[in-house]
Amino acid sequence: MTSVDWIGLLAGALTTIAFVPQAIKIWVTKSADDVSYLMFGIFSVGIVLWLAYGIALGAMPIIVANVVTLVLSVLVIALKVRYSGRRWKRDQETDLP
Amino acid sequence: MTSVDWIGLLAGALTTIAFVPQAIKIWVTKSADDVSYLMFGIFSVGIVLWLAYGIALGAMPIIVANVVTLVLSVLVIALKVRYSGRRWKRDQETDLP
Repeated sequence: MTSVDWIGLLAGALTTIAFVPQAIKIWVTKSADDVSYLMFGIFSVGIVLWLAYGIALGAMPIIVANVVTLVLSVLVIALKVRYSGRRWKRDQETDLP
Repeated sequence: MTSVDWIGLLAGALTTIAFVPQAIKIWVTKSADDVSYLMFGIFSVGIVLWLAYGIALGAMPIIVANVVTLVLSVLVIALKVRYSGRRWKRDQETDLP
């Protein structure tokens, strides 16, 4: 593996693990109101295309990084769906007379 | 430009413009509590490395996408800093006797 591959792998590792603290933050605070669905939705579609690009180039760092990033990005969306639902239910319950 | 380059450009366009709705959301709601500093910090460092990788490969879509993504990712951090400060000041004022 060349040194350029290593830079790509480190880059991919960072832009991938970056999603972990966001997912943990939502999990811990049970709140994701300020997190944009549009951001993570558009981002996920883009990641699918980066994956196709990496496969076409045979560029291993791009492929590996984007598979994991896709999983984490979809996880953030899933967590936001989950806790938005809870917030809504809680608000509904609070509104009961 | 090859069709692979076009896939890369579209991928880069999507993972880049994805940050725009997040920045707008923070700007409009003036709130970014649920947005993780760690996510956008680690992500920005990773983007700098992707930029180095793209330059090393001479891969134009990677270079263009990552320059713009870096600007937008740092913008999200700056907006969070700005509105966290406001929230803090407001809380301080509310706490006054």
